[in-house]
This record gives sequence, C-alpha cells and structure tokens, in this order.
Amino acid sequence: MRKNYLLTPGPTPLPPEVCEAMARPIIHHRTPQFQNILKEASEGLRYVYQTKNDVFILTSSGTGTMEAAVVNILSPGDTALTVQGGKFGERWTEICQSYGINAEVLDVEWGKAVEPKEIEKRLKAKPKIKAVFTTLCETSTGVVNDIEAIGQVVKNTDAVLVVDAISGLGAIDLQTDSWFCDVVVSGSQKGLMLPPGLGFISVSPKAWKLAESSKCPKYYFDLKEAKKAYDKTDTPFTPAITLIIALCEALRMLKEDGLENVFSRHKKMADATQAAVKALGLELFAPMAASDVVTAAKVPHGIDGEKLVKAMRDTYGVTIAGGQSELKGKVFRIAHMGFIEEFDIIVGISCLEKVLFQMGYKFQLGTGVRAAEEAFLK
Amino acid sequence: MRKNYLLTPGPTPLPPEVCEAMARPIIHHRTPQFQNILKEASEGLRYVYQTKNDVFILTSSGTGTMEAAVVNILSPGDTALTVQGGKFGERWTEICQSYGINAEVLDVEWGKAVEPKEIEKRLKAKPKIKAVFTTLCETSTGVVNDIEAIGQVVKNTDAVLVVDAISGLGAIDLQTDSWFCDVVVSGSQKGLMLPPGLGFISVSPKAWKLAESSKCPKYYFDLKEAKKAYDKTDTPFTPAITLIIALCEALRMLKEDGLENVFSRHKKMADATQAAVKALGLELFAPMAASDVVTAAKVPHGIDGEKLVKAMRDTYGVTIAGGQSELKGKVFRIAHMGFIEEFDIIVGISCLEKVLFQMGYKFQLGTGVRAAEEAFLK
Repeated sequence: MRKNYLLTPGPTPLPPEVCEAMARPIIHHRTPQFQNILKEASEGLRYVYQTKNDVFILTSSGTGTMEAAVVNILSPGDTALTVQGGKFGERWTEICQSYGINAEVLDVEWGKAVEPKEIEKRLKAKPKIKAVFTTLCETSTGVVNDIEAIGQVVKNTDAVLVVDAISGLGAIDLQTDSWFCDVVVSGSQKGLMLPPGLGFISVSPKAWKLAESSKCPKYYFDLKEAKKAYDKTDTPFTPAITLIIALCEALRMLKEDGLENVFSRHKKMADATQAAVKALGLELFAPMAASDVVTAAKVPHGIDGEKLVKAMRDTYGVTIAGGQSELKGKVFRIAHMGFIEEFDIIVGISCLEKVLFQMGYKFQLGTGVRAAEEAFLK
Repeated sequence: MRKNYLLTPGPTPLPPEVCEAMARPIIHHRTPQFQNILKEASEGLRYVYQTKNDVFILTSSGTGTMEAAVVNILSPGDTALTVQGGKFGERWTEICQSYGINAEVLDVEWGKAVEPKEIEKRLKAKPKIKAVFTTLCETSTGVVNDIEAIGQVVKNTDAVLVVDAISGLGAIDLQTDSWFCDVVVSGSQKGLMLPPGLGFISVSPKAWKLAESSKCPKYYFDLKEAKKAYDKTDTPFTPAITLIIALCEALRMLKEDGLENVFSRHKKMADATQAAVKALGLELFAPMAASDVVTAAKVPHGIDGEKLVKAMRDTYGVTIAGGQSELKGKVFRIAHMGFIEEFDIIVGISCLEKVLFQMGYKFQLGTGVRAAEEAFLK
C-alpha cells in the first residue's frame, strides 16, 4: 500500500470533481447538449483570462497553442523578438525558426526575470519586430516575468505581445486586457487542474489585424477556422469532449473560490515552500523572481539531485520535478499550483527532509516543516 | 429520468473500464511508471495496426494526424493524389493545398468506393505523384474502400500510400504491413473506444525515406522529433496522460477479444443494421460498398431528416448522426463501431421505428427490430 502525491509543475493533481466528470458516459459534440458545455467553458475561460477577447479551445498540448500563436499572426521572413530565460522561452525561438521567421533572441540569464527596458530597447532598435514572445512563468527555472510592465512597453508599438501563460494561468494574476496582452496561450494541466490535452488561446483585435495578412501555412491550428466554428458554438474538428466537460467543473471551482482567493492561496503555498527550503539551508534558484506556482531550489553540494527526486518518487510516492536541460541534476522543483493546499506542502517538505537526511545532508530534522507551518500560521 | 444511447461514428460509447481509468489520480509523464504505460500502449497499437512500424501517439484530433502525414512526407510544390469520395477525403485535399502541395483530385461519387484501377491510371499518367491519400472508411457516406487492392497498385510505384483509418481502425480489417500502407493515421474516438483527444500515426521505411527530404514547415507535428522521443520511450511534449492510460485499457480489451472476433462482431452489427433498415423499406446510401462501422440510409420521401435525428436524440436519448455537407438532411447514419453490441442496435432500430412512426412514415411497427433479431440469430 502506498499513497501517491504529485507536486510537479504539470500535470498537477486532479480534484475529485474533475476525475468524476471524465468518468461520465461520453456525449456527442455536435449536439445542443455539448453546445451548452462549450458556452460555459468559453465564459469561464474569459473569466480566468480576465479578457473580453475570444478564447479558443484547441485539442493539443500547450506547445500546439504556442505554434498556433506563431503561425496565425506572422509570415515567413517576419522578425519577432523571443525572450529566452529558460527551456520554454527557447521553444518560442524554435517554433519561429521552424516557420522561417527571424527570431531576434533576447537572452536572459536562467533564474532571472527579463528587464522590460531591454524589450523596449530592442523594439526601438528594430521597429520591424512584429511580435514579442514572452513567458509568464518559466517552469524550468521557477521565474515569473513582469508581464504587466512588458505590456506597457509593447502596447505603444506596432508589435503584438504574446504570452505563454501555460504555467500560471488560473494560479497567478494575468490581466489579459488591462495588461495589453494580445495573444495568451495556456494549457489544461497546470493552474486549471485538468489532465493535459487541451490548449487555450486568446486573440486581441490588434492580433487579429496581424492575422489577416499572416502567410504561414496552417490547417489544424488555423484560428480563422476556429473563429468561424466558435461563432456557431462549435469546434472545427472533433474536440477532446471529456476534457472540456471536466474543464467546466474546474472553471466552476475557480469561480466559486474567486480569482483573488486563488491567487492568494498560491502565494501562501509559495511563501511556505520558500521558507521551508531556506530553513533547510538550501538556496532558491531564482530568489529575486520566484513565482508563486513552482519553487526551484539548488541541490546542495554533495547530494545527487537526480537520486533525490527519484528516491522521493520511487521509494516514498512523492513526485517533484528535477532540473531540465542545463539545470539537470542541479535543481529540484516543488510545484504548488492548482489543486494544492497546505498539507500537500507539508507532505512534500517532510519527504524532502526524509530523503535529504538519508542521503547524508546535515540539518535538524523537522526544520523545514516547522518553517512551513509558521508561514501558514501567519 | 432518461437513459442515453450513443450510436454515432465518433465519439463511440466508452467501456466502463475506460471511464474508470480516466478517473484515476493522474501521474507524471516523465517517470518510469508512465514509461511502462507508453510501452504497453505502443505494443498494443502495433497489434491493432498489424504492423512492425513505429506507431506514434499525438495529442490532437484525428485531423492533426492527417496534417502530420502531409507535412512530414511532402514539400511545397510536390504533387499528391487525393481520393475524394466524401467529406474526409476532401480534407486531404484541403490540407495539401494549405501547404502548397499540388493536389491531383480523384473525385469519386459520394456513396461509391474508389476503383483501384483509377488510382493506377492516375499514377501512370503522372509519375511525379509522391503520395496517394485515401480513406479506409468514409464516415460521411458509410463507404469502405478496398485498401488492400489500392496497396497492390501503389506498392510498385515511387509513391507512398497514406490511409486515413480514423474511422475503422480496430473495427474492420486493415493490415498495415501486408497491404503496403506506408502511413496510417487514426484517432481515439472510434474503433478504439476512447474519448477524442489522441491521434495515431504509423510510418513505413518507404515513408521515412520521403520524410528525409520533406521541406514543409512543422514543429508540433514533427515526426522526427516524435521518433527521437519514442526511441527513449518518451513524447516530445506533455501528452494527454489520462487518455493514454485509458488507451491501455481499451487495447487490452481488444487483445483479449482478438482482432478477428472484433471484426466479425462489427460485421454482425452492420448486417443486422442493414437488414433492419431495408426491412423498414429504407434505402442504403452505399449499397455496393457499405462499411461495417457505420450504416448510412436515405431519409424516406416526406420525412424531415434533421427532425428525425433531433427527435431520436432530444426526445428519446438515442443519438445517431445526420448527413454532413451535401448530404445534410438527406441521410441518417447509425454507427455500430467500438463498444457496441447487439442490444444497442435493437435499441437504435426500435427508436428509429418509434420516431418514423410518429412522423407519419407508413410501415409495420416492429419490422426493423425483427429483421435485426433474425440477422443476429444467423
């Protein structure tokens, strides 16, 4: 007998309401019954996105919606600014390059947030930049970027602001409209408390204008077709029906809580996790820009980071994430996103203590948990 | 209180085992635990595909896998033969054209199967045709094409044979390897008894060779990246985890039954449905090429086809499909694919009789059900 705990930055744990919804007998998607569901999902997404723009539901991983963003607003030969401060920022560059778009790369040191002023400089230097591709929360480093400030910089230019909010939407604040975000892409398996399989994308009037002249080839991810179907409360292709039904449940839960409460809960989880990590004598990987959705900590000297993650998962059933790409073995990441509350964090920290102790790391057992408890009592 | 019955050609009803699997707590996809599941799913897919080729799992609707087929083997300016005998054949043409590929259209009258000789003629006339795009079962008309014979025609040319088996795989015979099918695409929501959200695609060595020189832009659907991940029992992007776990359950059920039994069950369902429809004095839409997965029948004179489908669904809870595109209102389609057995057919026919009777169609009540019962007793 073993209980499993999931503290990873996608997928995140599923609420029982979501599990139950997916287990229901399936219904057909071209029916008034499913149209009601689609309508509810669209309204709920607009609430979470804090937007009046249409939010399209795509059947794909988050990366598919990133590709949709690129191929619908740009053309081969266009220039775009891609902000790269981690694995997912790099993905914007890769997608642009796959479609013959000149990616002006703004490299940001992993673990740091981008300086909005740097974006401003680049835009002034190259006015032909048509789009700025950014990341709300860079899952690979735990960094959160200041999208609000970036929006202030981009809004006065001809460029559109595209935000990868796959990690963060529905967990931390992102005001699509008042922050001037033209295209916001997201996925189901993070703040929205669903399994992976759905992507979301909002499009502002400024972005639609650019879309009019886009010449990238596309079919499955063609948002003009998505819009045509959307206006008839339909989808262009057979959608992931069960996931959309479950999405309605998750959106209902988020609405019931209210976005403000959801955001402050995530902040609490992050504060407690950071406090615990520091109390254990560990160093945060991104101390100046740590997000409220995932905490990255440096693996202490003398400890094998990959073994740490493996032991927590395979021996004790607590799944956290290791480092990706250049951070492999160097950091571990504890996510506190979605359907996570304080005792999940306590379990995660307790298991971290247990394995660190067994691996010979020197500290007072219980120190991390105590720091988390103190943070939660504040 | 109302019970709902689903007799549509995708989605098809879900077995309880599949529903239960989706309701389980989610696990992370970059773990040995999920790798075991991926391995099992891949082996099961090869069994259903009757192939030694790799079968990739994509997180998308079936149409996404069709796009993957096009963009991975062809380049802009290439010529391809698309066989169009219904809505889904037309989709091949549309996707090719979206990517600047010259689509040589082979138009087939809706309701008829393509003549393999016609394909042979076209290939001889235009040896530069690089790929032939076909459909196993054209869902919009209920027609099944003779893929085996087409394979015999294409195998001796430089062209590759691409089969849309979204409707039909795991329900009717499709021998990927011995019928020389180079690329076979499929989806989860038909014969495989799952919700929509997963696509599958197999690639033969001949098709891989073509893929080497393909210049269509791609990222999310790049099969070379899929192959790299596949060889490490991984996926390039976060996959639809719960659907893949459910896929294992469905594949286990198919294996337990054995493909031959599965195919003969589908034939029985089709025979009974066709017998019932004819006994009611209705005409099959595709009498010469009716598939074992969906039966299309002409709406009798004086009856409103759309109202018929609507009444069955909204008044009595039995969902069948109406006609698509040019067949709207002219046919109705009863699917007998996936998790369907004889009493589902009896319910469907009984409900059809009830509504036809109420709409004033003249026939002896019970005639259709009796014909179905007789067919099942054979």
